Amino acid sequence: MSETGGALNVQELIRKKRDGEQLDAHDIRAFIRGVTSATIQEGQIGESSHRKRRAGIQLYLFLGAMLMAIWQKGMVAEETTALTKEMMMSGNIFHWPQEWARLVVDKHSTGGVGDKVSLPLAPALAACGCKASRVVHYKCPVPMISGHGLAHTGGTLDKLESIPGFNIQQSVDQIRQILKDVGCCIVGQTENLVPADRILYALRDATATVDSVPLITGSIIAKKGAEGLCALVLDVKYGRAALYKDFNSARNLAQSLITMGNSLGMKTGAVLTRMDTPIGRCIGNTLEVFEALECLKGRATDDLKELVTSLGGYLLWMSGRSPTLQTGQEEISRVLTNGEALHKFQAMLEAQGVSKDTARALCSENIDYFNLIPRAEYQTEFEALDNGTVLDIDGLLIATVLHQLGAGRTKAGESINYRVGAELLVDLGQQISKGQSWIRIHHDCPKLSPQQHSDLQGTLVIGSGESYQAKARVTEFMPPPSL
Amino acid sequence: MSETGGALNVQELIRKKRDGEQLDAHDIRAFIRGVTSATIQEGQIGESSHRKRRAGIQLYLFLGAMLMAIWQKGMVAEETTALTKEMMMSGNIFHWPQEWARLVVDKHSTGGVGDKVSLPLAPALAACGCKASRVVHYKCPVPMISGHGLAHTGGTLDKLESIPGFNIQQSVDQIRQILKDVGCCIVGQTENLVPADRILYALRDATATVDSVPLITGSIIAKKGAEGLCALVLDVKYGRAALYKDFNSARNLAQSLITMGNSLGMKTGAVLTRMDTPIGRCIGNTLEVFEALECLKGRATDDLKELVTSLGGYLLWMSGRSPTLQTGQEEISRVLTNGEALHKFQAMLEAQGVSKDTARALCSENIDYFNLIPRAEYQTEFEALDNGTVLDIDGLLIATVLHQLGAGRTKAGESINYRVGAELLVDLGQQISKGQSWIRIHHDCPKLSPQQHSDLQGTLVIGSGESYQAKARVTEFMPPPSL
Repeated sequence: MSETGGALNVQELIRKKRDGEQLDAHDIRAFIRGVTSATIQEGQIGESSHRKRRAGIQLYLFLGAMLMAIWQKGMVAEETTALTKEMMMSGNIFHWPQEWARLVVDKHSTGGVGDKVSLPLAPALAACGCKASRVVHYKCPVPMISGHGLAHTGGTLDKLESIPGFNIQQSVDQIRQILKDVGCCIVGQTENLVPADRILYALRDATATVDSVPLITGSIIAKKGAEGLCALVLDVKYGRAALYKDFNSARNLAQSLITMGNSLGMKTGAVLTRMDTPIGRCIGNTLEVFEALECLKGRATDDLKELVTSLGGYLLWMSGRSPTLQTGQEEISRVLTNGEALHKFQAMLEAQGVSKDTARALCSENIDYFNLIPRAEYQTEFEALDNGTVLDIDGLLIATVLHQLGAGRTKAGESINYRVGAELLVDLGQQISKGQSWIRIHHDCPKLSPQQHSDLQGTLVIGSGESYQAKARVTEFMPPPSL
Repeated sequence: MSETGGALNVQELIRKKRDGEQLDAHDIRAFIRGVTSATIQEGQIGESSHRKRRAGIQLYLFLGAMLMAIWQKGMVAEETTALTKEMMMSGNIFHWPQEWARLVVDKHSTGGVGDKVSLPLAPALAACGCKASRVVHYKCPVPMISGHGLAHTGGTLDKLESIPGFNIQQSVDQIRQILKDVGCCIVGQTENLVPADRILYALRDATATVDSVPLITGSIIAKKGAEGLCALVLDVKYGRAALYKDFNSARNLAQSLITMGNSLGMKTGAVLTRMDTPIGRCIGNTLEVFEALECLKGRATDDLKELVTSLGGYLLWMSGRSPTLQTGQEEISRVLTNGEALHKFQAMLEAQGVSKDTARALCSENIDYFNLIPRAEYQTEFEALDNGTVLDIDGLLIATVLHQLGAGRTKAGESINYRVGAELLVDLGQQISKGQSWIRIHHDCPKLSPQQHSDLQGTLVIGSGESYQAKARVTEFMPPPSL
């Protein structure tokens, strides 16, 4: 506890935040040092003296009270900046070759159902001359299911790991080499990148303070800052299947992220996107890889294409490679259609361990994907119970059932079933007839439970109205302050 | 952590309070069980398995976050009741003989400078036929000095311990015997009376959540409830030298205490009293004993006499021994003047270990107290720097200097110097001449520092106005709901 300046300072620190006073950079440093010493304490607590054990106890009381005070009182921009910088400096920082200074870009999404945007986006950016280094920091958190803090459906890394041979673990040197050779990579977090974030996330989870705008901001921006990006685009989602249910909360977070990103010297912009129904047609790791490949072959659904071109176009614009947002979007659209992005994706697969044959086959024009990566043992189709218009498909409810069927984790480190997933066979707004199949579930357990049957049937709303639920769409572009 | 129902329940508990939802009795029980298991964890944490250490860490994170959430969101009456009951049930409960059912009374003060009220009050009540069991739970907290959570000037127990031979440690059987024989005792907390309070106080101190109305209420009322009282009066102070600086905050606490006390079946009332200037003429442990003896000999200052008769009268009225508050006050006044209270005090001193000779001498009419209990080595008098009216004497500032001179503790368990103190030689509103002595400081270090000199001189305000600072006075009587 000496790192945080003794017991009295710690209480004074809590009191300041508790009373809504502004913490200075020194206070924030003491707090983050407390956080980083937390694992050390955990290691020491068992074998050390009574005095050290007491210090450990005081530390965890301090962290619990402090996190709750931050949750309650929030932070002003100066405090969040100091927090983000302290977190960033807790580990290593990526350094890129000088000539890449205005090339290295990345995007971050707050997570959604069927969100396979990163897979086509990274190679599309590479095809446009960017260095797209997608470091995925933890399996993308997707809407919490039944309150479990660790519940996930598949994240970007899970999707890619469903491709035989794909290796997400790459050293900094390997990442640099792949970026030089191919222009893009999608990798897992390296060991010593923002270690404070891993500890802080566990502490937030234990103290019910995960959903704090300054803490979320610090977590996201510190990691992106440590990656040495020149431009960052954020996909901040709102709606039923998103972290924030309402537009204003999402906008608030986006604004905080933009402010912090730019204050760290990254051109940072955000798009606000609806997240009520699944993105595209497929949910589930393997199925989403196939849909991403279809997107790279010029056959994306409208909503997926809009997300990829919007986010990619934004990065091209912010990094100065396109004169306007619109030309940036057109450029991304062009490389998705002309095969250049697909070519980059194939090269990335090979560079990250997939065999030449598999990579080539996956990326060839007319291929039965299930010949390369076997489908699940069972496919169950659900039929419409009525005639009418497809008014709504509840993405969160589908994700919940797929999670139960093995597509997602309940605990960190659990293995999951990549093949479990769902294909939507209808579109919102489309006419549907009674008895027509509208969803195909891929599963390996022989039978779905009656509850799962009724849950899935309940996700589809058929009616006679003209007004149906919107697909995942970009609602607002929030540019960096200087653009 | 199994006592609190597993990690998920704990997070849900934090979330509920964090979001301002009402906790039910089951939730409160889980929280207090977490508190009482905290010391157990402290013991176990060093020698147990990784799993148990993790549980310990989770426990302290939970307690830290939960206390801050309670501090921020407060508690409704039902929650405070459940908290108070759970705390009360964490240890032993006093059981008195059936025939005392309407006799056992006590008072509690939120603490002030020069507050020696308990010393004459307990024997005065005994002289009126009550059983006044003053169990002093911790050294009375007096206004915090320079932010130290453990800073105290002398509490009631310190004052009594300055009398040679006085023993504050009495078992429950001994307390019962003294109450039977004498009618009053003033003792320290027995080992197993509301153990949750001791732990919770340490946790609150570590997390800067001491000044929370529901937690203060639970702490005070649980201990009084465990004493099996029939009536309780609270002296809730406000002003410069009190826990609460403003009247409304003090009134708010008083209301919470009254509600809880009565809901536990004790007739509970409160008086709100000003606490800007010292009570009476003396501050410091030995000096205050002498002033209490003067009070018992019928020579109290007006403010001290008002406090003793008001608090005592209130208890006589609430316990049904006086028909009105006023007759109760008159009754207390009578036993302070006619020597009956003094006689009880002498008996109490003897029952609690003081020699017959010392007790008799202290309580005899014309005695030089300093012949019995030696004064400090040095007395320094301060002279007025101007002619005029005494407009103000800052009690907090005097207490701060006396604390530095050894009258109070900075850490729990430290020994203190009983002889250090101050005698006021003038009254508020009185005319004073330049060069006239106005305060006499008793100290054992040879010289006061220049800073202490200027601090003490700064406590006296002389001017030409008619309007001077009020002495400690009762501002409002707050009766139990049923009276």
